[in-house]
Amino acid sequence: MFGVLLVILISLWMAIYHGGFEWYHEKAFNFHPLFMVLGMVFFYAEAILVYRVFRNKKKIVLKLFHASLNVLAFIFGALGLKAVFDSHNLIDKPIPNLYSLHSWLGITTVVLFAVQWLFGLFGFLLPVSNLKFKKILMPIHLFFGIVIFVLATLTSLTGLTEKALWTLDKTYQLFVPEGVLINVMGLLLVIFCISIVFLVVNPNYKRVAKAEDGVNLIN
Amino acid sequence: MFGVLLVILISLWMAIYHGGFEWYHEKAFNFHPLFMVLGMVFFYAEAILVYRVFRNKKKIVLKLFHASLNVLAFIFGALGLKAVFDSHNLIDKPIPNLYSLHSWLGITTVVLFAVQWLFGLFGFLLPVSNLKFKKILMPIHLFFGIVIFVLATLTSLTGLTEKALWTLDKTYQLFVPEGVLINVMGLLLVIFCISIVFLVVNPNYKRVAKAEDGVNLIN
Repeated sequence: MFGVLLVILISLWMAIYHGGFEWYHEKAFNFHPLFMVLGMVFFYAEAILVYRVFRNKKKIVLKLFHASLNVLAFIFGALGLKAVFDSHNLIDKPIPNLYSLHSWLGITTVVLFAVQWLFGLFGFLLPVSNLKFKKILMPIHLFFGIVIFVLATLTSLTGLTEKALWTLDKTYQLFVPEGVLINVMGLLLVIFCISIVFLVVNPNYKRVAKAEDGVNLIN
Repeated sequence: MFGVLLVILISLWMAIYHGGFEWYHEKAFNFHPLFMVLGMVFFYAEAILVYRVFRNKKKIVLKLFHASLNVLAFIFGALGLKAVFDSHNLIDKPIPNLYSLHSWLGITTVVLFAVQWLFGLFGFLLPVSNLKFKKILMPIHLFFGIVIFVLATLTSLTGLTEKALWTLDKTYQLFVPEGVLINVMGLLLVIFCISIVFLVVNPNYKRVAKAEDGVNLIN
């Protein structure tokens, strides 16, 4: 619910205050906040929740669902990155790339996500790893799963802060509507992140391993 | 180690690029990043680690040490807040307060910290709560302990981003030394945060309850 509201607000923000969505020169930027949050925050969170919401389904079904949602997260994340690079490069006076703390955090997050995705694919989904390797990998996969999600959230918060200052400059200090909207979206992001982490770490919501899981017994 | 390095870098940042430390009008600001990180990130993290580093000491000693470090965190946090309000209010053209996402996140963090501190004091340190209440409170205290720490970290990251844009403006895009220093401090903050959370959640490092803990048996 918080996630859907967040995605709607970002769309409205870009539509109302920044001229909507068109993949054309500097306007390409408007896809960046929407696609990054849709991919790296929203779909990523849904992928995490698969093992909590549908915990009575067969393990292989859950794995495929988890992997598919993470493919969606990856596609939107990649498009979101292309949007920001295009908006920097395809204009008359190109803006340098990767100079800000936001961009450094973002690249770190995306690289960790890609590594995590590959380890997930070869470690758990494809039948190529042995049980010993899976047992070592599982706690690492869980820990970094949450770390990457929190990194995506905090990168988004630095992005909101950057956009507020670049766009509004000193008018940000006057509580203009766009500034307040940005702050509300930031708080929503934090509430969404805390809710998801709570649902994931709470032992009561964990999936109980079943005999039919076979060699996939580790949860 | 990451934490000490971070505090040193912030001190150098304010000393070299912003004229050092003096509690006088706008310069009071320079205490803000130093004291907030020293209190809400560094000492707060040390307070968390007490139960991991000295896990063979008596429970009551650990509690007092944990509470004392959190008092230090509170004092520096309060001074850090006073610094930013003074720097906004005690100048010719006062700057509005609490308009930014950074400030909203910061106030949320500090309020949650104060509530957490009071619950810790009356729930665990003072001998006024019964075992049932302690058992309910403990997982909440642990969860919010980590949430508040991560909130402090991400608030700092939005603060670094704000300071970079207000101070450097477009020169931030040219990889000037202060900009790179800010980004490095941001990455250090994230690495410090991940290290601390890892040490806290890893079950291998948890304190094992002892018989002598008596009614304080729950860890």
